[in-house]
Amino acid sequence: MAQDLRSQELKNPIDVAEYLFRRLHEVGVRSIHGLPGDYNLVALDYIPKVGLHWVGNCNELNAGYAADGYARVNGIAAMVTTFGVGELSAVNAIAGAYSEYVPIVHIVGYPSTVAQKDGMLLHHTLGNGDFNVFSKMSSQISCAVSMLNDVHEAAVLIDNAIRECFLKSRPVYISLPTDLVQKKIDGDRLNTPLDLSYPTNDPEKEDYVVDVILKYLHAARNPVILVDACAIRHRALDETHDFIKKSGIPVFVAPMGKGAVDESLPNYGGVYAGDGSNKGVRERIESSDLVLSIGAIKSDFNTAGFTYRISQLNTIDFHSYGTKVRYSEYPGVRMNGVLKKVTEKLGELNIEHGPKPNNEIPEQEVKSSEPTITQAWFWPRLGQWLQKNDIVITETGTANFGIWETRFPADVTAISQVLWGSIGYATGACQGAALAAKEKGIKRTILFTGDGSFQLTVQELSTMIRNKLNPIIFVICNNGYTIERFIHGWQDSYNDVQEWKYKDLPAAFGAGEGSVLTYRVSSKKEVDDLFTDEEFSSGDTQKLRFVELVIPWDDAPEALKSTAASAARTNAEAIQAAGK
Amino acid sequence: MAQDLRSQELKNPIDVAEYLFRRLHEVGVRSIHGLPGDYNLVALDYIPKVGLHWVGNCNELNAGYAADGYARVNGIAAMVTTFGVGELSAVNAIAGAYSEYVPIVHIVGYPSTVAQKDGMLLHHTLGNGDFNVFSKMSSQISCAVSMLNDVHEAAVLIDNAIRECFLKSRPVYISLPTDLVQKKIDGDRLNTPLDLSYPTNDPEKEDYVVDVILKYLHAARNPVILVDACAIRHRALDETHDFIKKSGIPVFVAPMGKGAVDESLPNYGGVYAGDGSNKGVRERIESSDLVLSIGAIKSDFNTAGFTYRISQLNTIDFHSYGTKVRYSEYPGVRMNGVLKKVTEKLGELNIEHGPKPNNEIPEQEVKSSEPTITQAWFWPRLGQWLQKNDIVITETGTANFGIWETRFPADVTAISQVLWGSIGYATGACQGAALAAKEKGIKRTILFTGDGSFQLTVQELSTMIRNKLNPIIFVICNNGYTIERFIHGWQDSYNDVQEWKYKDLPAAFGAGEGSVLTYRVSSKKEVDDLFTDEEFSSGDTQKLRFVELVIPWDDAPEALKSTAASAARTNAEAIQAAGK
Ligand SMILES: Cc1ncc(C[n+]2csc(CCOP(=O)(O)OP(=O)(O)O)c2C)c(N)n1
Ligand SMILES: Cc1ncc(C[n+]2csc(CCOP(=O)(O)OP(=O)(O)O)c2C)c(N)n1
Ligand SMILES: [Mg+2]
Ligand SMILES: [Mg+2]
Repeated sequence: MAQDLRSQELKNPIDVAEYLFRRLHEVGVRSIHGLPGDYNLVALDYIPKVGLHWVGNCNELNAGYAADGYARVNGIAAMVTTFGVGELSAVNAIAGAYSEYVPIVHIVGYPSTVAQKDGMLLHHTLGNGDFNVFSKMSSQISCAVSMLNDVHEAAVLIDNAIRECFLKSRPVYISLPTDLVQKKIDGDRLNTPLDLSYPTNDPEKEDYVVDVILKYLHAARNPVILVDACAIRHRALDETHDFIKKSGIPVFVAPMGKGAVDESLPNYGGVYAGDGSNKGVRERIESSDLVLSIGAIKSDFNTAGFTYRISQLNTIDFHSYGTKVRYSEYPGVRMNGVLKKVTEKLGELNIEHGPKPNNEIPEQEVKSSEPTITQAWFWPRLGQWLQKNDIVITETGTANFGIWETRFPADVTAISQVLWGSIGYATGACQGAALAAKEKGIKRTILFTGDGSFQLTVQELSTMIRNKLNPIIFVICNNGYTIERFIHGWQDSYNDVQEWKYKDLPAAFGAGEGSVLTYRVSSKKEVDDLFTDEEFSSGDTQKLRFVELVIPWDDAPEALKSTAASAARTNAEAIQAAGK
Repeated sequence: MAQDLRSQELKNPIDVAEYLFRRLHEVGVRSIHGLPGDYNLVALDYIPKVGLHWVGNCNELNAGYAADGYARVNGIAAMVTTFGVGELSAVNAIAGAYSEYVPIVHIVGYPSTVAQKDGMLLHHTLGNGDFNVFSKMSSQISCAVSMLNDVHEAAVLIDNAIRECFLKSRPVYISLPTDLVQKKIDGDRLNTPLDLSYPTNDPEKEDYVVDVILKYLHAARNPVILVDACAIRHRALDETHDFIKKSGIPVFVAPMGKGAVDESLPNYGGVYAGDGSNKGVRERIESSDLVLSIGAIKSDFNTAGFTYRISQLNTIDFHSYGTKVRYSEYPGVRMNGVLKKVTEKLGELNIEHGPKPNNEIPEQEVKSSEPTITQAWFWPRLGQWLQKNDIVITETGTANFGIWETRFPADVTAISQVLWGSIGYATGACQGAALAAKEKGIKRTILFTGDGSFQLTVQELSTMIRNKLNPIIFVICNNGYTIERFIHGWQDSYNDVQEWKYKDLPAAFGAGEGSVLTYRVSSKKEVDDLFTDEEFSSGDTQKLRFVELVIPWDDAPEALKSTAASAARTNAEAIQAAGK
């Protein structure tokens, strides 16, 4: 009763669910991923009402991966699942987004607050009356948890969660009990958009750091720039680009930084990952007297097994949470402002040019008369076919390492999960990325997945068809888990997978006659033909394209081989230690 | 070094992984579900060594569901996943097993203890050096967590986890770091099998309880027995059967207790679930002056929305954790011993017979000239076709409620997830159940899933094909999430699913020519023909059978309709309260 009087006092009352979805629209979300469940059904009614699109995924893990891919293209994503069964299915995707700094608003439809208070023995519970156990689990992989149990807090908690999600670039969790969905709150709040700006650096502190950096930069004989994932994820690409272009300093990317840099620039030098680096890159970087490292994540696979060899004495680290010059730390001095000022005050620099990667097929491959597609041949060949603005998604496996050998045209968005490395991710992410691409007018979304990985999340192909998306999908058919074979179990049956007729799947998933083009290519010649086929390559067709790319089971990119050997050593570490 | 000296002192040294898998073999596990990952590869080498079979699932959630299905047929199951990405994908399946009391040993391949101590920035981590975050999440849904970090504790921790898993009938979590896999421990421990017997009741206490029960039983004019899930899950079926047979008391099952009772017995009376009960059952039970309730779980869907109407004053509850006679509680007095003694001392009883369900087609359906398959027609018709020993799996959706109307032959095992209710479960569980059936010589495993649910875990069909399993699969094709429509969103597009060509999938998943029989039936006549087709019905063929069972989108079993209406009310509870 008190409730109702209060809500009658609101000038512009709005339902909690509508408020939530309007806020999501405001921050740029246009599609909501997820699955229905009886605890979220009424909330779903608001999605079309506020002009959002419901994707309707096949399962929640895939929905989470798709939301991740959507966020990487769109800037932020949202998904809706149902209590217990739905949300827990998505936990791995959310953990991946947490690990790799991807902003996803995860809305979980909860049983009514009354049922919760009564500890009712409801479906989708552990049968123990505890309604907090799942949010507790998610709190480990979310940068904010907003439990909407009280209508008076709802708007603040929603705003807070969405803002945190964006600024920290990590998942947040919002519980939405069935009885809160239609409660009234103050709609006038929506007249003030959320403030999504990063706090600016303390100007004095920032100037101090900039001076220190410029001092080292001017003294450097052969500086290099190394760009990594956090430059993308923490939205420092504009500042990074300006710095690269104006300075002319040779620039390299770590594997997770692929796509951060315009690789068509004359000062782009290739991928640095220690032993897994592009030709000539390692020598150039490791002999540099100043490495300007932007947004680094020095994980095992991002450094080809910790084979990074750069002295901290020669390094300036730019991060979202602070700056580090050699060993001097400046916490809280965010990279964006610092990079901007450094670029403005640049002055005279010493430039020593670096290698120039160019998608030339390696000599050995050119000479070879073997018709079989090899990894060493394919990835530079791909680079010749890619176009400006393409979105390129690579799965953990040979694809994720092969792509190091592909030089991109300008403005390519690269998506992969080098740190979290959950297989199946890429196919889900492709759905979300292709959808965001469609919304933003980006023409081509291209997926490279492995035959093993594809099997984990195959049904998202159906969601792509359902949503009339037109990605170009390559499934690398190499009879199983090749990357694992290089780590352990070369010919063991646990590294085999069931042989599917991959290209029969779009039709089985209900693709309309003629709406999908399918191919199987097993020779270099067939790849060449495919790449010159106009309909296949088109950015303007509505057709989904699906390619079985046949590569021998025992072939892998060189970078994968060295990384795999290193992983096997790390895994065996103490076995060897004990055996000493 | 000290390590090595110690292990040389062991008379019969055995590797940790071998010890673990031998113990699993000892308790009855014959197949291990899961997926490889570089943190578990070396451990997988031991599986064939100790005579176990590696299933090789398509993804970890499905592997978890399959392990659950395997455990329900076999008694216990085990699965192996890899750190982070693998284990988290399975969390929903493990939570379901926790909720529904299914014993699964979940072994997670961990990074080496050295890498953990060093806090290395490894793949599959959150990038924060915390290696305990995932086990913490799993501890919420496991009855024991054994972290194998020290070789000296390994055997004890393994034994303890497996014993707890079996006795509590819930999942346990075992971490297996890569560097522990090949460490040596004392193999002679294996000469003493694990003690898996339940502690016996205190005899004096037990006799006391038995006397109290007999007093009420002898005084009762029209007692009934009601059997539910925990009688199955806590292994009290033998005692329950003896009690039912010797006493002749009319016996009923709750939905989750389907399969617990020999439904061909003359005193079997049908399914009790309040408003969702079989014909005549509700009247009989609710007018009884003594309900002997064995292993009850009074959850919403198990009671057709809390419409159970039995007074505690007329109830004796038998549980794994104690006995309750009216309001007198006897904690720790486990049902098994009590039921056994009550049966022994039974004496003279008053028996008033109950209804006799018989798989007769309801009159209205018999009269109807409609060729379309209806839910009301199908489920009793199914009962006529089922055979002794069949395993029948039903998915959350119309199937799970429809099966209430099917009277089983003797010794049918029924599998479903009435409490946890995660869709996609049934298809995964079917793989595990069919595998356990094959190992145990059970001939037919029959799955009923919905078109919506099937899409979540469709790739497990591939695992069935890979493992040469021969289940009979029915996909109920009714254009989407019918159960959800009855709760909310009758014609909303979020309750639609992409229309698949379901029966083309086995071939796309690589089923050999002629190894799968596929069907589409859309009329009662076609169902009748199918059920009389010998090859289709055979328990002796190696062929997998796959049926599209077409039923109108707006049709549902009566029990579902009333349960759905009640769920919608519970969800809206406070909305109504506020609107008063
Ligand atoms: C969810 C999950 N399960 C298991 C793994 C372990 N794993 C990493 S790569 C890989 C094999 C990938 O095989 P495929 O996709 O065929 O790639 P290929 O190397 O053959 O190109 C596996 C099983 C993982 N990373 N994630
Ligand atoms: C993992 C998971 N996600 C979502 C739900 C919510 N849910 C329950 S039943 C259902 C629909 C099932 O549809 P279908 O399998 O087609 O069954 P039908 O009722 O049509 O026979 C959904 C989406 C759930 N229970 N579990
Ligand atoms: Mg492969
Ligand atoms: Mg359906």
